[in-house]
Amino acid sequence: MQMQFEDAYKEVYEIVKPKYKLFTAGPVACFPEVLEIMKVQMFSHRAKEYKIVHMDTVERLKKFLEVEKGEVLLFPSSGTGIMEASIRNGVSKGGKVLVTIIGAFGKRYKEVVESNGRKAVVLEYEPGKAVKPEDLDEALKKNPDVEAVTITYNETSTGVLNPLPELAKVAKEHDKLVFVDAVSAMGGADIKVTKWGIDVVFGSSQKAFGVPPGLAIGAFSEEFIEIANKAEEKGWYFDVPKYIKYQYKKQGTPSTPPMPQVFGLNVVLRIIEKMGGKEEWLKMYQKRAEIIRNGVREIGLEILAEPGYESPTITAVLTPEGIKGDVIYEEMRKRGFEIAKGYGEGIKEKTFRIGHMGYMTFEDIEEMLQNLKEVIEDLKKKA
Amino acid sequence: MQMQFEDAYKEVYEIVKPKYKLFTAGPVACFPEVLEIMKVQMFSHRAKEYKIVHMDTVERLKKFLEVEKGEVLLFPSSGTGIMEASIRNGVSKGGKVLVTIIGAFGKRYKEVVESNGRKAVVLEYEPGKAVKPEDLDEALKKNPDVEAVTITYNETSTGVLNPLPELAKVAKEHDKLVFVDAVSAMGGADIKVTKWGIDVVFGSSQKAFGVPPGLAIGAFSEEFIEIANKAEEKGWYFDVPKYIKYQYKKQGTPSTPPMPQVFGLNVVLRIIEKMGGKEEWLKMYQKRAEIIRNGVREIGLEILAEPGYESPTITAVLTPEGIKGDVIYEEMRKRGFEIAKGYGEGIKEKTFRIGHMGYMTFEDIEEMLQNLKEVIEDLKKKA
Repeated sequence: MQMQFEDAYKEVYEIVKPKYKLFTAGPVACFPEVLEIMKVQMFSHRAKEYKIVHMDTVERLKKFLEVEKGEVLLFPSSGTGIMEASIRNGVSKGGKVLVTIIGAFGKRYKEVVESNGRKAVVLEYEPGKAVKPEDLDEALKKNPDVEAVTITYNETSTGVLNPLPELAKVAKEHDKLVFVDAVSAMGGADIKVTKWGIDVVFGSSQKAFGVPPGLAIGAFSEEFIEIANKAEEKGWYFDVPKYIKYQYKKQGTPSTPPMPQVFGLNVVLRIIEKMGGKEEWLKMYQKRAEIIRNGVREIGLEILAEPGYESPTITAVLTPEGIKGDVIYEEMRKRGFEIAKGYGEGIKEKTFRIGHMGYMTFEDIEEMLQNLKEVIEDLKKKA
Repeated sequence: MQMQFEDAYKEVYEIVKPKYKLFTAGPVACFPEVLEIMKVQMFSHRAKEYKIVHMDTVERLKKFLEVEKGEVLLFPSSGTGIMEASIRNGVSKGGKVLVTIIGAFGKRYKEVVESNGRKAVVLEYEPGKAVKPEDLDEALKKNPDVEAVTITYNETSTGVLNPLPELAKVAKEHDKLVFVDAVSAMGGADIKVTKWGIDVVFGSSQKAFGVPPGLAIGAFSEEFIEIANKAEEKGWYFDVPKYIKYQYKKQGTPSTPPMPQVFGLNVVLRIIEKMGGKEEWLKMYQKRAEIIRNGVREIGLEILAEPGYESPTITAVLTPEGIKGDVIYEEMRKRGFEIAKGYGEGIKEKTFRIGHMGYMTFEDIEEMLQNLKEVIEDLKKKA
């Protein structure tokens, strides 16, 4: 295949070509193996070649997420799509949900609950804190009529990892459904769906798996599916039983999936195997996180997350007195590093974030930390 | 960037590598310029580089779709997502919609209406027929309480192009909202959103634009947006006013968009300009369609669509007596051509389909027709 209109490609490439080493909150840098498969020629999503990759991806995800009972499904949407699916399929009309909030993405779950005509009861913490099991227990004692609890596993805006197994255990003791937003956790923090008693957990292609955006991944428990089967007015696009039916009958999705991203995710899941499996892969994330946190502290900066709950996938850093996060972001860009700006009410200006996700080497991390050190020193002199 | 796990890429590539010349119903073959941009390294969708391409794509689409008033929005979903958006944002809870059905995708609109708690009144035709303006007028006289009319512009299952300008005119005379599924029309058949009085029209990346799947395109009238602003329980994911707000404030989407597909669409819109603009591009589709229809008739086969309503993007062909469509599909695959199987109740076995969409040359078309001729002759001998 030859390009007849190469200029059309070049014009767009000039705008979007790689300019930075990425430490973003997502989309993150992708593995070269993934980018290479992204350019494969398309074909029908009902052809057997697609079916093979679709089902192989689902099987590999089941293993990675330790789904012993229930289903793994792929959605042509961002992760927020499955957030909506959890509410429309799993909570009765007008029903109550306990939404735990430790940052901007917990707030989004509240919006999703309410915009779908359900009621939200909120357990909220200040930025940097994690949900404590005893608080959840108390909140559930006070609100015995909630049908489900939502938990942000990893809060991208504050860099906090919630103690998911403990929180799920408490929710299950109260016999509640457990819905987990794992968008910035899946692929970077351990998830054991069946063992931990999770009913819905979802992630996205563009975070810790290091694949371009456009694909959401969901795991659903048998109990949730039973409720979804009876639910009314689920809509069409996020009707979970419909996705299960199509996966069994057509080895695909009800409507056309983002095929390149499915292929990319399949490539990453094979890379994980070749690196030695999930354990080794997650160790890589732990190591990246430790190096970045230690480096940040050596520069004399403080981390927003409370000790013991630091995220393996993203670190939110408090800016030095009098220096805005945006300024640090722009200075790092000038030096060829794209980090992430602060995000969320009250902390947007006082923080910046360093993503640990996707394709990066340990040399890249050292280089980024060295540059960050210089940027902070320069800005302090000017401040 | 070097591949460290090249085998992971190769294993997947072996399954999905190009094996056929594509005449599919979608996903279709993509332009080489598009495939090349699909492999660009990712970065944050809130970075200015993404914003530039997003807004440029929206502006080019506004021109291509002749949107003089109202908005063009990009959705991280398949086209069906915007089908759901039209109902949840534009029709009151429990409200009535007149759904016109000329094939499988008209039936899908009915499912979307009903699964979202609205009521469908149906005007249905047998496969191969188009909706007639006088029938629509009569149906609207009988059902003055419907809030909207849905029209499948191009029915992918039967290869019929509805007379959209005439139908929209009738609906507007009755003061109804006009929702148009243009998934297999947009990019291959003309659409003049404002002039024709269309309130919602949506398409997908993977059809006549020749881009991989994962991205939906919607145009919305001012009147629709006003209704959507007041609508309740729209949900989060397909909340149209939220998409407008994010497009103005952040030059992007509320949640992460499929960036590679947005870049691919931008490349195609530039190719269209370089080919001489929309007129020339649509002429190419007309020419492809005529050559394919003439070729099919020369082989002695009949076309399902009634005369005068043949689709410019896909042709459904009736199989000769005693030969199933699936068999023709498989025989063509053996010869290196992927056409599309029949689709939909009552016609699945009696038809096969030839897509005209995406990347193909006129030589490819001649070669496909020659092979189809031989396949039909062989099968007739055996029958």
